[in-house]
Amino acid sequence: MEFSSKYLEKAIEEISLLPGIGKRTALRLALHLLKQPQAQTTDLATALVDLKTKVKQCKSCHNISDQDICGICKDQSRDQSIICVVEDIRDVMAIENTEQYKGIYHVLGGKISPMDGVGPNQLNIETLVNKVKTGKVKEIIFALSSTMEGDTTNFYIYKQIQSSKLELKTSTIARGISIGDELEYADEITLGRSILQRVPFENSLKN
Amino acid sequence: MEFSSKYLEKAIEEISLLPGIGKRTALRLALHLLKQPQAQTTDLATALVDLKTKVKQCKSCHNISDQDICGICKDQSRDQSIICVVEDIRDVMAIENTEQYKGIYHVLGGKISPMDGVGPNQLNIETLVNKVKTGKVKEIIFALSSTMEGDTTNFYIYKQIQSSKLELKTSTIARGISIGDELEYADEITLGRSILQRVPFENSLKN
Ligand SMILES: [Zn+2]
Ligand SMILES: [Zn+2]
Repeated sequence: MEFSSKYLEKAIEEISLLPGIGKRTALRLALHLLKQPQAQTTDLATALVDLKTKVKQCKSCHNISDQDICGICKDQSRDQSIICVVEDIRDVMAIENTEQYKGIYHVLGGKISPMDGVGPNQLNIETLVNKVKTGKVKEIIFALSSTMEGDTTNFYIYKQIQSSKLELKTSTIARGISIGDELEYADEITLGRSILQRVPFENSLKN
Repeated sequence: MEFSSKYLEKAIEEISLLPGIGKRTALRLALHLLKQPQAQTTDLATALVDLKTKVKQCKSCHNISDQDICGICKDQSRDQSIICVVEDIRDVMAIENTEQYKGIYHVLGGKISPMDGVGPNQLNIETLVNKVKTGKVKEIIFALSSTMEGDTTNFYIYKQIQSSKLELKTSTIARGISIGDELEYADEITLGRSILQRVPFENSLKN
């Protein structure tokens, strides 16, 4: 497509680098911004740069945070001895929204998937095992997607923790969530209930 | 939804101001940018600000342009005496893509639509009539959407031009494009042909 403005062309090129946004949508968004007050564009641009330059990863749980340690890890009213293991920060948000869980989290950053070239070393597993080795952790709740990769990841971590020979409860969230579904799309009630009705991890292996 | 970072929250808020983008999509886009190299975000932000601050409207045809007069209006290899009247700059792009048209354009910025509160004065009609009054224009091609609003707008401009008592050919693009369709979604072949087979405007009134 020919553009009468190289600034429009550049904007479309950059917008369409975003996932799920094609050239036509990018053009529509660019023309929309052209019609809006200038503040909307500068606010958007500033927010994007702030997002990229100021957001950190919590050094303890790998959740995103504006500080070195996130608000959840810092919160002494939460039970710091229960760790809910999730794939992604969106899962933290989804579980927080249920208002059912008062422990802390550990964000793996994905799940073991040999097909996608993701092995245990690409995930935040070592920091979790180290946390367990301090002896301060009483329970690990696995809240990964109920897919083959999720199950593989649960089992890998379970074995790592077992080898530490510490007394530790492990559980998985109750499978109110249908098999194969991504956690982040579950409704709040189902997700909240599945946390409350979590089952010992060993039990989930028997099915 | 609770966010563990106010910068993430702000970014989502700004992204979701864009049309057709909800909070969930905004979150997905923000998290995508967090995973990419910083240059992608700064390039995007710069492109958006440049778009808003540097893009102008052509003083002659109202197409967007990086200069006061756009490349099409400046191009002396094009027939400056034939003006194709369109609603939107996207229509200019669509017609340019057909590579069938070698006249110039006039972008109205919409169509007359009493339902939406758009009257003739909100559109770039006066500058078109003034251009016609210079006597340098030989033909006006109406290339508006074949909707009731498009037809009303065509007719309004036609009457304005007639009152100037200048000898002037008026035509509409051939209706190869199905009734009710937006021009910008027409395929290039149909659109190109409909320009070549344009019919005198008076003829279109008989149907
Ligand atoms: Zn944390
Ligand atoms: Zn122009």
